[in-house]
Amino acid sequence: MAKKASKGSASKTKYVYFFGAGKADGNGSMKALLGGKGANLAEMSRIGLPVPPGYTISTDVCTYYYDNKHTYPASLQGEVEKGVAGMEKIMGCKFGDTKGMPLLLAVRSGARDSMPGMMDTILNLGLNDQTVLALVKATGNERFAWDCYRRFIQMYGDVVMGVQKRPDEDEDPFELVIHKLKHDHHEDDVDDAHLTVDDYKELVARFKKLVKERTKKEFPTNPWDQLKGAVGAVFGSWNNDRAIVYRRKYNIPHEWGTAVNVQAMVFGNTGENSGSGVAFTRDPATGEKVFYGEFLINAQGEDVVAGVRTPSPVAELAAVMPAPYKELDRIRGVLESHFKDVQDFEFTIQDGKVFMLQTRNGKRTGVAAVRFAVEMEKEKLIDWQTAIRRVPADQLEQVLAPIFDSKAVKAAKSIASGLNAGPGAASGKIYFNSDRAAAAGDKGEKVLLVRNETSPEDIRGMLASEGILTLRGGVSSHAALVARQMGKVCVCGAADKTPDMSIDYEKRTLTVAGTTYKEGDFLSIDGSSGVVYEGSLPTAASEITQALVEGSAEAKEGRTFQNFQKLMNWCSKVTRLAVRTNADSPDQVENALAFGATGIGLCRTEHMFFEGDRIYAVREMIMSTDLEGRKKALAKLLPYQREDFTGIFKALKGLPATIRLLDPPLHEFLPKEDQENEMSDTVKKTGMTREFIVQRIHQLHEFNPMLGHRGCRLGIAYPEITEMQARAIFEAAVDVQKSGVKVKPEVMIPLVGFKKELDLQVEIVHAVAKAVMKERKAKIDYQVGTMIEVPRGAITADEIAETAQFFSFGTNDLTQTALGISRDDMGAFLTPYQENEVFKKNPFATLDQVGVGSLMKIAVEKGRSTKSDLKLGICGEHGGDPDSVKFCHRLGLNYVSCSPYRVPIARLAAAQAALEEAAASQKDVRSSAGSKPAVTARSGGKATADKKTATNKTKTRNKPMAKKAAKKAAKKPAKKAAKKAKKK
Amino acid sequence: MAKKASKGSASKTKYVYFFGAGKADGNGSMKALLGGKGANLAEMSRIGLPVPPGYTISTDVCTYYYDNKHTYPASLQGEVEKGVAGMEKIMGCKFGDTKGMPLLLAVRSGARDSMPGMMDTILNLGLNDQTVLALVKATGNERFAWDCYRRFIQMYGDVVMGVQKRPDEDEDPFELVIHKLKHDHHEDDVDDAHLTVDDYKELVARFKKLVKERTKKEFPTNPWDQLKGAVGAVFGSWNNDRAIVYRRKYNIPHEWGTAVNVQAMVFGNTGENSGSGVAFTRDPATGEKVFYGEFLINAQGEDVVAGVRTPSPVAELAAVMPAPYKELDRIRGVLESHFKDVQDFEFTIQDGKVFMLQTRNGKRTGVAAVRFAVEMEKEKLIDWQTAIRRVPADQLEQVLAPIFDSKAVKAAKSIASGLNAGPGAASGKIYFNSDRAAAAGDKGEKVLLVRNETSPEDIRGMLASEGILTLRGGVSSHAALVARQMGKVCVCGAADKTPDMSIDYEKRTLTVAGTTYKEGDFLSIDGSSGVVYEGSLPTAASEITQALVEGSAEAKEGRTFQNFQKLMNWCSKVTRLAVRTNADSPDQVENALAFGATGIGLCRTEHMFFEGDRIYAVREMIMSTDLEGRKKALAKLLPYQREDFTGIFKALKGLPATIRLLDPPLHEFLPKEDQENEMSDTVKKTGMTREFIVQRIHQLHEFNPMLGHRGCRLGIAYPEITEMQARAIFEAAVDVQKSGVKVKPEVMIPLVGFKKELDLQVEIVHAVAKAVMKERKAKIDYQVGTMIEVPRGAITADEIAETAQFFSFGTNDLTQTALGISRDDMGAFLTPYQENEVFKKNPFATLDQVGVGSLMKIAVEKGRSTKSDLKLGICGEHGGDPDSVKFCHRLGLNYVSCSPYRVPIARLAAAQAALEEAAASQKDVRSSAGSKPAVTARSGGKATADKKTATNKTKTRNKPMAKKAAKKAAKKPAKKAAKKAKKK
Repeated sequence: MAKKASKGSASKTKYVYFFGAGKADGNGSMKALLGGKGANLAEMSRIGLPVPPGYTISTDVCTYYYDNKHTYPASLQGEVEKGVAGMEKIMGCKFGDTKGMPLLLAVRSGARDSMPGMMDTILNLGLNDQTVLALVKATGNERFAWDCYRRFIQMYGDVVMGVQKRPDEDEDPFELVIHKLKHDHHEDDVDDAHLTVDDYKELVARFKKLVKERTKKEFPTNPWDQLKGAVGAVFGSWNNDRAIVYRRKYNIPHEWGTAVNVQAMVFGNTGENSGSGVAFTRDPATGEKVFYGEFLINAQGEDVVAGVRTPSPVAELAAVMPAPYKELDRIRGVLESHFKDVQDFEFTIQDGKVFMLQTRNGKRTGVAAVRFAVEMEKEKLIDWQTAIRRVPADQLEQVLAPIFDSKAVKAAKSIASGLNAGPGAASGKIYFNSDRAAAAGDKGEKVLLVRNETSPEDIRGMLASEGILTLRGGVSSHAALVARQMGKVCVCGAADKTPDMSIDYEKRTLTVAGTTYKEGDFLSIDGSSGVVYEGSLPTAASEITQALVEGSAEAKEGRTFQNFQKLMNWCSKVTRLAVRTNADSPDQVENALAFGATGIGLCRTEHMFFEGDRIYAVREMIMSTDLEGRKKALAKLLPYQREDFTGIFKALKGLPATIRLLDPPLHEFLPKEDQENEMSDTVKKTGMTREFIVQRIHQLHEFNPMLGHRGCRLGIAYPEITEMQARAIFEAAVDVQKSGVKVKPEVMIPLVGFKKELDLQVEIVHAVAKAVMKERKAKIDYQVGTMIEVPRGAITADEIAETAQFFSFGTNDLTQTALGISRDDMGAFLTPYQENEVFKKNPFATLDQVGVGSLMKIAVEKGRSTKSDLKLGICGEHGGDPDSVKFCHRLGLNYVSCSPYRVPIARLAAAQAALEEAAASQKDVRSSAGSKPAVTARSGGKATADKKTATNKTKTRNKPMAKKAAKKAAKKPAKKAAKKAKKK
Repeated sequence: MAKKASKGSASKTKYVYFFGAGKADGNGSMKALLGGKGANLAEMSRIGLPVPPGYTISTDVCTYYYDNKHTYPASLQGEVEKGVAGMEKIMGCKFGDTKGMPLLLAVRSGARDSMPGMMDTILNLGLNDQTVLALVKATGNERFAWDCYRRFIQMYGDVVMGVQKRPDEDEDPFELVIHKLKHDHHEDDVDDAHLTVDDYKELVARFKKLVKERTKKEFPTNPWDQLKGAVGAVFGSWNNDRAIVYRRKYNIPHEWGTAVNVQAMVFGNTGENSGSGVAFTRDPATGEKVFYGEFLINAQGEDVVAGVRTPSPVAELAAVMPAPYKELDRIRGVLESHFKDVQDFEFTIQDGKVFMLQTRNGKRTGVAAVRFAVEMEKEKLIDWQTAIRRVPADQLEQVLAPIFDSKAVKAAKSIASGLNAGPGAASGKIYFNSDRAAAAGDKGEKVLLVRNETSPEDIRGMLASEGILTLRGGVSSHAALVARQMGKVCVCGAADKTPDMSIDYEKRTLTVAGTTYKEGDFLSIDGSSGVVYEGSLPTAASEITQALVEGSAEAKEGRTFQNFQKLMNWCSKVTRLAVRTNADSPDQVENALAFGATGIGLCRTEHMFFEGDRIYAVREMIMSTDLEGRKKALAKLLPYQREDFTGIFKALKGLPATIRLLDPPLHEFLPKEDQENEMSDTVKKTGMTREFIVQRIHQLHEFNPMLGHRGCRLGIAYPEITEMQARAIFEAAVDVQKSGVKVKPEVMIPLVGFKKELDLQVEIVHAVAKAVMKERKAKIDYQVGTMIEVPRGAITADEIAETAQFFSFGTNDLTQTALGISRDDMGAFLTPYQENEVFKKNPFATLDQVGVGSLMKIAVEKGRSTKSDLKLGICGEHGGDPDSVKFCHRLGLNYVSCSPYRVPIARLAAAQAALEEAAASQKDVRSSAGSKPAVTARSGGKATADKKTATNKTKTRNKPMAKKAAKKAAKKPAKKAAKKAKKK
């Protein structure tokens, strides 16, 4: 559109949107065109809130500006002049007036989403050596006027003319001028309040001189030139480095552009009856329904934020300025009832009159998000579906995580920072070895396990620890994965982000930037922020965990839990996608069930291999070079595994359990050659010679273990392992079933890429099941399925589905193989990849929908083409990531599976996905009803078919409301719908 | 059909096919129904060759037999009796006749393909205590008759009744009986010829007793029972272990089943005017057109094969039995002119009369295959297209490989066997370390490099060696890959196949089953068979290599080369797919061009990094922790790389070169910590401390280097590397172009999974190209493209094609990632995987068309949907595998690229693919012309479109004949075609 205009056609494109005096050209829905700030200024104006008049230059102009070599559309100037005239009319004063009160302007950027790093604000625009005198005259406040003027030059000189601190300078040049002036005329540390009118006048002169020296340009005196410069600076700031970095990080398209808001100045600094403030309609930290915020008397908005003077809580305004307070409280109510969400707003009180400068949806903590949603529903401001949508699923993590006391954090010394891999807060004595950590844990010590990286044999140490700190590895490293599943706090890859950080295992020390911490010293880690602190900071479990897991009656009665529970109940009403858990032990199952899991989606049998002495039987099995030896060792393992499964089946109380057979490369279970204790213990307990063990370790070494002898390849090379595991599963199943608890084992064969692999393993499982059922005279209802975790498995899913009763997408490995990226080795290029936007998000944290997702889609389609009721799930780490959960819903999976502590997050995301689908479906229905009625039925029919497939085998716990709505909408006669559409 | 019959319906299915007396129910094309032997017996009978009458029980009966619990169709017995009656009529004697000459039968199995491991033959069936007397009477030869009888019992007892050597026995039980009898009546080592009639009679009795003892059953006396038993044994042998293993190995479907041939006996053992023999119509070893084979006077066929008596060359028959020889020579001519291929046949001469017992296409060596094809074309027996089809592309390898003298091999001691990874023969002194191997090579020693496995730093040692022997790793291991590219002989993974084989690097010894070989000892390896010999066996280069590469005039005049060249010229007439080469040095390029390559498809820049001192500059670059350090090291590398490319461009003489930028993980270039010399040299040459180097080695360690920091990930993290490489390429290109030689660089970015990765690298390449062209005032015609070698790249090929000018499928890595299998680690499960038929062929040797091929198909379709003229190639090892080459042709790729020594193989496969396509297309046209004429035009049109795409950018060297034919066929008016079809 903008481009067309440039080619000289008589375009009618409107570029400037006026607001003020209870009216506005735009409204709150026009954020794309007017930016967030501009749209809401218009909206507030429309609903009669006291907004200083002004106009918004639309984002189209920004697009035009970049498409046309930093020039503006021809028609813009006229519209701008009209806008200024509108302000003059309402304010009753003139822009650049040198006689009466001059109209002064505030110029602010305003992108669709608020964007730090862009130019923020220029105030008092329109002042020059003449208008400042008119301002003196009009206000009778010489000091105020000259202060405004020097502030304007300072801001404008900085952001428009680029007079900024150079790398070789210690201080901002304007501040340096102020210091110099203070030094020349007063004490060095004199307060601004002590500066005289003459001081300000001199500052103005010295500032102008500074600008001239630095820029070789005069400071612009013509108010219209000032305005043009300020607008240009806003557009220019859209593409400065910080803004680009921010957009990259938050995935904001560069094409959006920014709007510019030009608004009549109001002054909070005209005296004791004026002030500025920032406030929330409710407490964004706790969620409490109180007027929350702070203000400064006799100050402009920037002073509140700058932190030079300490603002007062907004409640105190009631005493200081009762009438404005009452007005603000009224506005607070209007905002919430109009915007239906908690607002974060800025206001200025000029001589007792309140002005609204901005409003937007307030950022909030997870706890507050839940409370806002639940209480606003109760207040009938929103319906329960909206309440579900209101809580960012990721934020539940905060609600569930143990936390450090915030005061303690402020006082603590942060020594390093890594990836926030397992949310929460943990303090403890550091240990560099799992055995010693476990021993210390047994003694009741609070322990932090600190390792370069962890491996399955560290499980005991991790179990015993409050938290895990690793120097290497990403958010999907072994440490992070297991920590999240265990609900442990975890900071990963700290040395990648912290220079000079290293462990000396021999000396048992951690050195960070020259400071050395010995084993047993206290550290604290914040798994939500990734920060590592010196010493021990106090922590507590979240109220939710206390209520659900620890069964605390007090916590159950607490508001946080009550709100959480209400939200979860709403989710259940709407969810189609079931949420299972990844769990390897009865207590993990219990936790997950408390959080609402509907079964186990992934039980990793090998995690049990490290408990107690069983590791030696495992090693014996691995190192045996003949069938005889392996069978002997497996016979030792059988009772252990049976016991494990018995515990898990009991804990599940009849819910299904997907049990994955042995998956990792065998050498992961072997002792390391240089671990003296492990080696000698292994020699002792297995009866094998050290020489033989070393030889086997070498033989089992693999170049790329991720792509090596693992998964079903183990069970095919050594069928006796599969036999033992199947036997353990079915014997346990029979035992538990006989005790009166239902069992639903789902045996899962890992790493299948060829149908034949699955056939070979399934044959063994069936044979063992048959044998056990015959021996023990019982019947077990079981299934056998596979993981889809290599691309070939996805590509040949139609063949594999002939044998598989279910698929579970192992998206960790599927991501590794589809992308050809080892998650443990990506640290070396993750940073340049994210900086260069090769991928926006770590594909191991959030599913790569385009690449890996396409393979999943192929597998879903091919799998269901063979078996229409094929049960489909996902058990990679992505099962707990909201975006990925939503993708799984859209793919038509039956369930996601995630670590116990992410179950509520997945449930919330699943509910939101169902609502999104229903909304899209209704939109579909509506739009097609308007134009092509024939499509309506098909669209509705399709939605129903999805539901049928997805709910066929997995019993979702609640009725799929969203689908019902879609169905209902679809059933609505086309005519009626068309009529309705016309009315609009 | 068979099943229907079993349900009692009056089926007309014919089960028994009679042949004899110049007629036959079947013919040579009915191999599926009658088996290879049966079909050819029928065919020989039809064309009037002297075949003893008989019948074939069809493979349908075998299917019926297994589908119906080992029973036969009801109608079979009647047909069998009719068949026997037919034989009786022709032979003029009766089956089971106890008065006149009894009809005796031979029963033989006969699957579609000849299949060792199945029951072979039972002769003289129909003999019992009565008929043997009739035989005595009819022949007047008592000794002959009783010898026939005892032979029959022995064979029947063995293969039908299962009287065989038990594991605890040292000898066949029948042989033991014979020994016992000899011991009882004669000397222990008396010759069979000395046995008397009474001895034979007693043997018959003792054999019957043995059968009774072992089977608790009487030996069947009723000839019809004998026949039934023999037929059942043939069907039963279809599913014995050896047959199953064989089918698995050679990819023969279990469903095919076998036929049974029942034929009237003729006797080569009736006296000095009788005999048996096996012959070829031409020499299957050399290909010479001579009557080739061997015979025995007075012997049955089995005696020729058994090796008890040494047969005489068939030529000698001319002197011994002139008339039968003349008849056989006539038959030899008839066979070739009828079957149009070299035949391998069995004959029996009974009392001077020749009988044909079998004929089939003769197996042949590669050299013979080429000579047969070329000479038969000259003789107008076949056309040149058929000649191309006749040579199995793989067999060219034998023609090209140096060979051991066959006599020397017989005398040599084979000590181990591994995978035949690089064909040919090599002898040399063994060295366990590349440096020492290279040093020895420099001194002019013949060297074999022997390693557990090789890595890129062994390149120097490999270059200096005659051959490479590794103890670990498969046919696609580093050693195998590089060896094939270099045309080196290679045996891989020998320790996987040979127990007790190990290297002691410290002691510099190789131990095999207790024998120790020191460094410097001679070994010989046969890379075609995988066998390792003690000592040095004499070798010679193939005549082709001598002619094309070494330029030997003598070799050029030799028949082998002349034939080869003729074949290659025919290939060029028909090929659409271009064949490029993988080459990293000018001499490799020269070799490949001599073999007919049309350019470089893959130049691995990093292979040059190991030459001379440049490795230290590489190490310096890798270990630098800052940009400054890397740039300094890269500046040292630039002249080396430029020089490399200059040499390559010159050698190419204007043909295109696809140059891949740095690909492998950096730590591959680092010294190993425990390699003292390497470490100290690196310290010296880089000026870095040992401590620092060790630290960097640790930091650069990766868990899964295949999925780690490599490929374009290096160039994105360190753009300066890409800059240096691009500069080297373009500076070399300009230099060479200025010298008057055309250059066509195609810069290839490896391991791209995301379009953005390619964008980032392409940007650098273009920038450098622009800069170099400006600096040197030249214009280079170049392209930039990418490898498709991770599944995500294939899945998002439409996006990637927006930037890429060409794709090259890196099927080695694509196979690794799509299957999730590391080729270096698959040794641990390769055997169980092949035994269990998870995959039939090693997917790193032959492309997995279902899995990896599907991803390629997706990439081809998506890539060309974005860019219809996108140039497509393959540069994985599969580019030299005939099946894979054919698949690439069908996919519509423009070229394949393979190691220089496989170029002729790929050219032959490409020609065959074109012929196959033309045949299929003509068949399509014919069949659609018959039924749906409308389809004809479309089908023809499609073929034309393919051609257009595939030939758009890559200039194929010759006109695509096959396509032309298809087009021509397609153009033929539908009516005419339909008419033609009707006539048939």
